[in-house]
Amino acid sequence: MKITIAQLDYHIGNFEGNTAKMITAIKNAKEAGSDIICFSELSTCGYPPRDFLEFEDFLSLSDNCLQLLCSHAKDIAIVVGAPSHNKDPKGKNLFNSAYFLADGEVKFVQHKTLLPTYDVFDEYRYFEPAKSWEIVTYKDKKIALTVCEDIWDVGTDDPLYTIIPLDKMQKYSPDFIINISASPFNYGHAKTRIDTVRANVNRYGIPMFYINHCGAQTELLFDGGSIVMSANGVLYDELPYFEECIRHFQLSEVIKGEKNNEQPKVKIALIHDALIMGVKDYFRKLGFTKAILGLSGGIDSAVTAVLAARALGNENVRVLLMPSQFSTGHSVDDAMALVHKLGLKHDIIPIKDMYDSFITKLSPVFSDAPFNVTEENIQARIRGILNMALSNKFGNILLNTTNKSEMAVGYGTLYGDLCGGLSVIGDVYKTEVYELARYINKDEEIIPLNSIIKAPSAELRPDQKDSDSLPEYEILDPILYQYVEKRQGPQDIIDMGYDPTLVRRILRLVNINEFKRHQTSPVLRVSPKAFGMGRRMPIVGKYLN
Amino acid sequence: MKITIAQLDYHIGNFEGNTAKMITAIKNAKEAGSDIICFSELSTCGYPPRDFLEFEDFLSLSDNCLQLLCSHAKDIAIVVGAPSHNKDPKGKNLFNSAYFLADGEVKFVQHKTLLPTYDVFDEYRYFEPAKSWEIVTYKDKKIALTVCEDIWDVGTDDPLYTIIPLDKMQKYSPDFIINISASPFNYGHAKTRIDTVRANVNRYGIPMFYINHCGAQTELLFDGGSIVMSANGVLYDELPYFEECIRHFQLSEVIKGEKNNEQPKVKIALIHDALIMGVKDYFRKLGFTKAILGLSGGIDSAVTAVLAARALGNENVRVLLMPSQFSTGHSVDDAMALVHKLGLKHDIIPIKDMYDSFITKLSPVFSDAPFNVTEENIQARIRGILNMALSNKFGNILLNTTNKSEMAVGYGTLYGDLCGGLSVIGDVYKTEVYELARYINKDEEIIPLNSIIKAPSAELRPDQKDSDSLPEYEILDPILYQYVEKRQGPQDIIDMGYDPTLVRRILRLVNINEFKRHQTSPVLRVSPKAFGMGRRMPIVGKYLN
Repeated sequence: MKITIAQLDYHIGNFEGNTAKMITAIKNAKEAGSDIICFSELSTCGYPPRDFLEFEDFLSLSDNCLQLLCSHAKDIAIVVGAPSHNKDPKGKNLFNSAYFLADGEVKFVQHKTLLPTYDVFDEYRYFEPAKSWEIVTYKDKKIALTVCEDIWDVGTDDPLYTIIPLDKMQKYSPDFIINISASPFNYGHAKTRIDTVRANVNRYGIPMFYINHCGAQTELLFDGGSIVMSANGVLYDELPYFEECIRHFQLSEVIKGEKNNEQPKVKIALIHDALIMGVKDYFRKLGFTKAILGLSGGIDSAVTAVLAARALGNENVRVLLMPSQFSTGHSVDDAMALVHKLGLKHDIIPIKDMYDSFITKLSPVFSDAPFNVTEENIQARIRGILNMALSNKFGNILLNTTNKSEMAVGYGTLYGDLCGGLSVIGDVYKTEVYELARYINKDEEIIPLNSIIKAPSAELRPDQKDSDSLPEYEILDPILYQYVEKRQGPQDIIDMGYDPTLVRRILRLVNINEFKRHQTSPVLRVSPKAFGMGRRMPIVGKYLN
Repeated sequence: MKITIAQLDYHIGNFEGNTAKMITAIKNAKEAGSDIICFSELSTCGYPPRDFLEFEDFLSLSDNCLQLLCSHAKDIAIVVGAPSHNKDPKGKNLFNSAYFLADGEVKFVQHKTLLPTYDVFDEYRYFEPAKSWEIVTYKDKKIALTVCEDIWDVGTDDPLYTIIPLDKMQKYSPDFIINISASPFNYGHAKTRIDTVRANVNRYGIPMFYINHCGAQTELLFDGGSIVMSANGVLYDELPYFEECIRHFQLSEVIKGEKNNEQPKVKIALIHDALIMGVKDYFRKLGFTKAILGLSGGIDSAVTAVLAARALGNENVRVLLMPSQFSTGHSVDDAMALVHKLGLKHDIIPIKDMYDSFITKLSPVFSDAPFNVTEENIQARIRGILNMALSNKFGNILLNTTNKSEMAVGYGTLYGDLCGGLSVIGDVYKTEVYELARYINKDEEIIPLNSIIKAPSAELRPDQKDSDSLPEYEILDPILYQYVEKRQGPQDIIDMGYDPTLVRRILRLVNINEFKRHQTSPVLRVSPKAFGMGRRMPIVGKYLN
């Protein structure tokens, strides 16, 4: 038996595009003589469809797509993910289902049992868990069909659920497992995924074909990395990360388990590649080609510009240099060095005239109030207007250049430097931004060295440094990591050896700036806990603040 | 037996404040000779605590609060909602629990069974459903304890869940039901709530005490309206909406069911009162007293200003008039009429100079590109900067004045008129804003009549009218309602008699503007489907666009 894994990039709600892509893959698989082709979770409608699932119209378009796929399920079986209706009036109205199509019709459907409802996942919002578990027999092989999370509660001391669906299917003695997934990337996830597949293979003693979605859905990055694992726990194959791939496997060879094809997993390289895919897919799926961003001469905008250029092409990235009277000389020089290196289209618009016109008009209202954060914010917001003016006039999407450390403590101006359609490095701590810059420069100096070595500054008042307001990032970032990623409380973090006053100050800053994060752009998610849809905090709260 | 309902306004994470408030209520109840006092769902930590529930530190503060309440549970029993740990390693780590405290200790705990996970609710994100159902006996009365949603699956043809917890408790023949809730307001919800309580009372033939939270938690408005219903289905008492209230009830009187005290439920009056509570509580809980907003002379900012003044006091609302060369003469006149009527602090800052300085600086970049939405947006964004400058300088929170119709179709400038810490009327369609204005003017002309009768305009280009870009609101709003609130597809709406081209155009506008709504402020929720946390849509989708 030959099995094809189609690791594809679907587009939410683009039924026509998704179907066409699947039909092309089916033809490819037929030509290769495959018996079964497998797509990923909810591939008809794209994952995650979110509240579109509440629209009957949307669901019927998915049903149409399934029907069309049935007509292609001749001389080949198709495993495809789609929502299905729960016919029992009790419970949620939908299931998240794996369909097995063969002989021109739906031969079998297995619903998903374990519905992830944490972090970025909302599946119990829409779906009822499966209440029954069967397997499907095709060409004398007994196949256990599972959907994503269904395999994730094996081998843990603190299971999230009370049922293990594959345990329920064991009585039928399946020959192998197919898991169709939409499992989003974070920098540690590919390893965990392999460990999880292995825990299942070890428990049941049969091979597994694990098909993941690849491509970006706004903030969620799906890295692919589909897995074929032999019954002996050998990683027979791992499909590439961040790109579409169709591969065919002889089951008899997989059973032998004599090949091991694992890819390297280097954190910064993965983040780099993930962000490029995230930018590329965001633009492509929205139908845009060109980006704009403000280039300050600092490291954050330099790294963002390089990532954007690698995603969209140098010719499609336009930058705006907007020096003020508080900008140091090297700001423009450092920015221009990158402009020349990449050959970016650029404009220089000093903001002083606009700043002065605001200050003149506001002075009767402000009377003698001293210069403070208000005037700093005005500068940042003038830059926001200019960036957006070019975005609007030329149809470029503005990329936000804020890093995760700033995002966490609110070191940024709402409607100013926090503007943008997409935050590229908003899930990358400042210390990791330095790592990214060094990774980008590993073969040659692309990002000007001076942007990397100079002290970070917002340059919104004379001689300003980030370290005037914040601790050094080498101290700040680990504290943020413990609070944001690890959900440690103040005392836990203090017990790790950090200064109590500093810890309380930082945690307070994180919490009182929830209102800013509520209004910022989607953030490409590369860590296990990004700001955005996976971290839901009260704005009006009184905890640690 | 005497039972006290304490309908209180809790503050998320403010354990000290919440505990102090409950202890005061307990003293009050003891003085009234009560046997039991009931607080609402998750009252120790405030509802909804959201991802604070993932912090052990946060949970231990709730446990401390419970311990302190135990020490007050002498000569009185206390029913209080709090998170509790699930000791079974399987499943989620927490329950959403109703505690029964008596004789200085925890006498009984019943966990919540039905965990709302739809619209604004995320409870299965955190909680495991109850697996067992018992009742508590106190002073010879058998009491069935339930938490909010637990009673909501009775009397529906399409139940969301597969279990009815009160059915499970029936074998113990309880004497009455206590339900502790945190059930947020929408303009139709108070009636539904009474119907639901009645469906339960009818099914089980015993009285119910239903205790709701009151007060605002950012976008979520809890209206109180706690219910005491006799076994015969008579609404013995309904506590006031939008205010704290403590009332004591003789069980023997409730059982007689001879009193009926239902409050009037007039949609616009409810919305009016809800929005005022929402503004008031947002400021109070954040520790702010003063608001600022841009006053354009149009109806949206006028209604917002009146609501803000009623919430915060006229002296705490400051307005900014920012005419441009495209503003009509009546804009400033109409705005000033309201300023004088309410005695608001105001400033007039024409934006022409700032606009000209932007255009001058941008003209080399724009060269001969014609005036378009870019220049309109620059005006709106200059106003955004000015509003935020006063907000920053004087510590006022900027109120957003966008209505739901505009929010839906993206008729507003991101980082411009969409700025603000809180959207006051973002869940009120334009046609409902007119109703609100007429309601505000019911006794005297507060909002200038001209603001109400003139044609709506953004005044961002010469002679502009909303109707240049949009259909009349009398046509737009019902179409939006069908799509947003009722989740009808395009064909369903066309079948209601609307123009197919118009319907498709409007639905497309709603979908392509998801990116704007992603970056706007929280919206006070008054409808069954508001933009914000209760409506989760892909940004990069390809459905109906």
